[in-house]
Amino acid sequence: MSILTRPVFEINLPAVLQNYQELQKLAPHSIAAAVVKDDAYGLGAAKIADYLYRHASCRHFFVAHGVEGAKVRAVAPEAAIYVLQGMGEDSLPLFEQHKLTPVISCLEQFRYWQNHPIAGIKPVIHIETGLNRLGFRENDIKELSAEERGGFSLVMSHLACADEKGHFMNAHQLSEFQRLRNRYFPGLPGSLSASDGVFLGEEFQFDMVRLGAAMYGINTAPYRQNIMKPVVKLTAPVLQLADLPEGDFVGYSATYRANSPRRLAIVSIGYGDGLPRSLSNVGKVYFAKDGYRGEGRVLGRVSMDNLIVDVTDVKPIEVGNMAILLDEKYTLDDMGRDAGTIAYEVVSRLGKNPRFERRYKE
Amino acid sequence: MSILTRPVFEINLPAVLQNYQELQKLAPHSIAAAVVKDDAYGLGAAKIADYLYRHASCRHFFVAHGVEGAKVRAVAPEAAIYVLQGMGEDSLPLFEQHKLTPVISCLEQFRYWQNHPIAGIKPVIHIETGLNRLGFRENDIKELSAEERGGFSLVMSHLACADEKGHFMNAHQLSEFQRLRNRYFPGLPGSLSASDGVFLGEEFQFDMVRLGAAMYGINTAPYRQNIMKPVVKLTAPVLQLADLPEGDFVGYSATYRANSPRRLAIVSIGYGDGLPRSLSNVGKVYFAKDGYRGEGRVLGRVSMDNLIVDVTDVKPIEVGNMAILLDEKYTLDDMGRDAGTIAYEVVSRLGKNPRFERRYKE
Repeated sequence: MSILTRPVFEINLPAVLQNYQELQKLAPHSIAAAVVKDDAYGLGAAKIADYLYRHASCRHFFVAHGVEGAKVRAVAPEAAIYVLQGMGEDSLPLFEQHKLTPVISCLEQFRYWQNHPIAGIKPVIHIETGLNRLGFRENDIKELSAEERGGFSLVMSHLACADEKGHFMNAHQLSEFQRLRNRYFPGLPGSLSASDGVFLGEEFQFDMVRLGAAMYGINTAPYRQNIMKPVVKLTAPVLQLADLPEGDFVGYSATYRANSPRRLAIVSIGYGDGLPRSLSNVGKVYFAKDGYRGEGRVLGRVSMDNLIVDVTDVKPIEVGNMAILLDEKYTLDDMGRDAGTIAYEVVSRLGKNPRFERRYKE
Repeated sequence: MSILTRPVFEINLPAVLQNYQELQKLAPHSIAAAVVKDDAYGLGAAKIADYLYRHASCRHFFVAHGVEGAKVRAVAPEAAIYVLQGMGEDSLPLFEQHKLTPVISCLEQFRYWQNHPIAGIKPVIHIETGLNRLGFRENDIKELSAEERGGFSLVMSHLACADEKGHFMNAHQLSEFQRLRNRYFPGLPGSLSASDGVFLGEEFQFDMVRLGAAMYGINTAPYRQNIMKPVVKLTAPVLQLADLPEGDFVGYSATYRANSPRRLAIVSIGYGDGLPRSLSNVGKVYFAKDGYRGEGRVLGRVSMDNLIVDVTDVKPIEVGNMAILLDEKYTLDDMGRDAGTIAYEVVSRLGKNPRFERRYKE
């Protein structure tokens, strides 16, 4: 028997690479940029960018903030690093030092760029086509002179509903993007799709695709089976086994009561580790020591450091066995669904836990 | 006009201190231990522990994991540091090096401790009284010899429903704790209550109270007005202002549609920053440049890096103004409620965002 206390988070870098290459095959005529914003969805931007830079010759990276771009630059000396939130007073020195490329979404940002240009950098212009989030509206584009419009390196927009193949917004945004690009930025390279858009077909792919979620194993085309490889595995040790008498309550606010005697495993992971608290009375873990041993359900509230799991129907386990919370059998998409959210939020959050033992498979 | 891109997270250390002292006044006969697990609920365990060690002479700290205890030891050389998840093979060297005190919750952990005792350290025993999570059940306590039971420094348990003053579990757990302590650990110092239990009155306080959530400003006695000071402030800049035409959709999956023309502010913060995605179409921000300017509601889905906010009824604002997401007017408790969860989960998550500009008020 082992006595263990700490959850383990494993990130499979070759799987990220394989997903990247698979997506590149789906968009063979486009540059495959890697989206490593939000610390590569929590998986470690420096690790992921370094791996793709070395093993896939990836030379185009997207981040959200200047502070993220600086970390990518350390491992990608010759790459273009695009910063989606743009450049501001709170990030200008980082842009200058690390030669980051701002994505410019409005006139105010553009004027700021004109006052603080960076030698050798041509910014990206973000135009709005239906998401109604960041991006130049047509009225704002008209405020730019022809010369100003010629100063960009790329025109991009972003799809709102690309994970639903038949959604009317896809065709609408595609036609808006084509119209605005042809009218105001003829000949300028274009980028419309993130990884969900790649699956919509070649007409959505333009000159560059921005690969994020799918590269991390998430199913961004949920109308079909996932062809991406899972990238993460999450396990946590059983701290204690105990009997739950019939009639007893479990966890904070006593939200579960036993109708019959149950066997409990206390598993050393909780919402403080990034597990969604909405898995209370819903979440599942399974055990696989010397073969599959069965699945246990979360009883009561998820607490900050622990899960209480019903293992009554699981083959005998012991203290120190690892409960499996995420792997190829129960994926980020599964946890997102069970938690009432999406895989993106789940992984972004788990990935930021400093108390995991974090292991990278190279 | 300022051009800004980065959210700002401010942590008020004097407010933490004041809350700690206020709670100590409510439990004047108990040692006031500070709970700084989960990186002090995301607020920075080293910072918080250091501040309380220096300004309040706090000498008792609780963490969840050995790896957290090591960080606290660096700023609290003379304190007792209790580790709630116990000691295991994956943390033993940290316990030995930093003289951490394990909280022992089951026989297996106790046998491991007996094989790896640490000179000068007497462990804590955790007994189960109704939460049905970690802790010795009575049958397991009986397995310990009288001598073994005499080797602990403290007997603790944990309340399940202490935030509901009249809940029957409180009286039940109190009587169980008294019965088990008197029978098996007579004379041993006891600890039953975290900050929610402090508010239940002196009989729940015993020799030590474990102050966490309330110290961080959370209302752990929600049946009455909060007497704790808010500790965090969260703001994020407006990246762009834009008009939303009647009939247009907003955000991913087009979950909001405008019935009338609206004015939008795109605010540079999202679930990648730790904001709950469940604030989609629900969350609120407000503006207070040169006086209160009004409240805006989140439209559509919260995305990874941005919020889309309806500012139609807000007094004129401009790009670079800071939206206020958390402060004394809209607290962690408010956000927890609006997000369908609790303040604990909200702060634990926000506090782990590495791309915030993080400021400590000393």
